[in-house]
Amino acid sequence: MEDLYVIKIGGNIVDSDAALRDFLKKFAAVKGHKILVHGGGKLATRLAEQMGIPQQMVDGRRITDAETLKVVTMVYAGYINKNIVAQLQALDCNAAGICGADGNAILAHKRTSSSTDYGFAGDIDEVNTGLLGGLLNQGLSLVVAPITHDGQGQLLNTNADTIAQELARAMSRSFHVRLVYSFEKAGVLLDVEDERSVIHSINPSYYEELKASKKIFAGMIPKLDNAFAALSQGVKKVIIGKGEELEELLSGKSGTTISHE
Amino acid sequence: MEDLYVIKIGGNIVDSDAALRDFLKKFAAVKGHKILVHGGGKLATRLAEQMGIPQQMVDGRRITDAETLKVVTMVYAGYINKNIVAQLQALDCNAAGICGADGNAILAHKRTSSSTDYGFAGDIDEVNTGLLGGLLNQGLSLVVAPITHDGQGQLLNTNADTIAQELARAMSRSFHVRLVYSFEKAGVLLDVEDERSVIHSINPSYYEELKASKKIFAGMIPKLDNAFAALSQGVKKVIIGKGEELEELLSGKSGTTISHE
Repeated sequence: MEDLYVIKIGGNIVDSDAALRDFLKKFAAVKGHKILVHGGGKLATRLAEQMGIPQQMVDGRRITDAETLKVVTMVYAGYINKNIVAQLQALDCNAAGICGADGNAILAHKRTSSSTDYGFAGDIDEVNTGLLGGLLNQGLSLVVAPITHDGQGQLLNTNADTIAQELARAMSRSFHVRLVYSFEKAGVLLDVEDERSVIHSINPSYYEELKASKKIFAGMIPKLDNAFAALSQGVKKVIIGKGEELEELLSGKSGTTISHE
Repeated sequence: MEDLYVIKIGGNIVDSDAALRDFLKKFAAVKGHKILVHGGGKLATRLAEQMGIPQQMVDGRRITDAETLKVVTMVYAGYINKNIVAQLQALDCNAAGICGADGNAILAHKRTSSSTDYGFAGDIDEVNTGLLGGLLNQGLSLVVAPITHDGQGQLLNTNADTIAQELARAMSRSFHVRLVYSFEKAGVLLDVEDERSVIHSINPSYYEELKASKKIFAGMIPKLDNAFAALSQGVKKVIIGKGEELEELLSGKSGTTISHE
C-alpha cells in the first residue's frame, strides 16, 4: 500500500498569512499522497460580525443557523480553501480543493443526538473512498474544507478534526495512513506549562499508565482517545504537534507519535 | 468521441432560488458528460455592500480590487458553487465544484491589455484538458466558478462567458462539444422586442446576410462573433437561449443553434 498523509491545520495557522505561507511550503514538500484538512479560524467570525449576524458558541462549537452556514460556506469552502489551493499551485503542488459535497466526498446528517441544537452541524456517515482515491491517483493533493452535505441538498458545517479522523480511518482501507494534528502546542506535554516536556511517543500501555497516574492534561484525553480509536480502525500512526515543524513531525523528531507499537 | 455539454448560466438563474432549482433539475437530467459554468449575480454586490466595500463597474465589468476579489471568491467559489453541487447531489448527479486554481484547471494572467485597470481580473492562458477529462471520465459532472489563478498564488476574477468558451474550445480536442449560453432571451431575435422572433439556426452565410441587412441587434454581434470563433476552433455547436428550456435547447426545439452547417 502507498503512503497517505492526512494533515489537519487549525486556526492558529489559517488566521496568519505568514504562518500559512510557511506551513504550505512544508506541506508542498511532503512527498507522496496527501490531504490537507483546514479549519475555519477567526475569519468567519469576523465576516459574520461585518454582516451583522450574531454568533453563538456552545462548548467551543459554533451554532450554525442558516445565515451562519452561508458565512462558513463562503469563508471555509471559498476564501480559505481557494487561497490555499492557489498558493500550493505556486509551490508546484497540484492541489484541488473540495468540500464534502464535491463528488459526494463526505456524506453527513444534521446533528440530532445532542440536547443542544447546533443548527446546520453535520455528523459524518460515510467517506467516498473511491472518489478520493481516484483524485489522489490522478496526482492531486486534496485540500478539504470543513463543510459536508446530507445528500438531500443541505450543506452542513462539520468539525475539521472529525473530518480528518474520518478521512484517515476510511482511506486506511487502501493506503498506509498517517494522521497529523497540527495545534498550538509542540505535542502532548507531561507538564502543560512546559513546552519542552513533549512526550515523544505513546502506545496503549503507556497511555493507560499516563491516565492512571493523572500525568496527562485532562483536555488532551478526548484527543488521545480519538487517536487510539483511529489506530484501532486501521490508521498506522497519529502525530500531534506544531504544523510549523511538519517535516520534523513526519520524521518523528518533533511532536508526539501515537501508535500501537 | 463522446459528447460533452458546456453550459453557462448567468445571474437571472443564479439570483433566484426557484429558477436555479428548476434549472438544476434539467441539468441533472442531461445524459453524458457535462460542465456547468456559473456566473455570480447580485449576491456578490449585496455582500460587498454589507461589508462596506464600494463596487465599481466599467462597461458592465466589475473592477476587482483586493477586497472585492475576496468577496467574489467567497460568493462564487464558496456559496454559489457549493450550493449548486449539493443540490445536484440530491438530484443524483455526481457533481464536483471547482475554480480555475483547483487542479490547475484554468491558468490565467492579470489583465494588462486594457487602458482601464480592472484589478484582479484574469484573462485565460490555458485550460488543463487532461485534468478535466480525467474528472469527467471518473463520472463527475463539473461545476465551474468564474475564478481562475495565475500559477503564482494569485486568484483572479474571470468572466464566466469567456470561461465557458475557453473550456468548450479546449475540450473539443477530445470531446464532441456543444456549448450552451443561457441568457434572458429565448434566443437570437430578429426583432429584439418580439420574443417569438427567435432565429432557429445561423450558419456563416446567413450570419453575413443578417449583418449586411442590419437585421441583428448590435449587442448580439460580439456574442455571435465569439460563437463562430468557438466553432472554428472545434466546438460542434453553440446554442443560445433560455436555460429554463434546457431540454428544448439541446434538442433544437428552442433557442438559436449556431453551427457551420
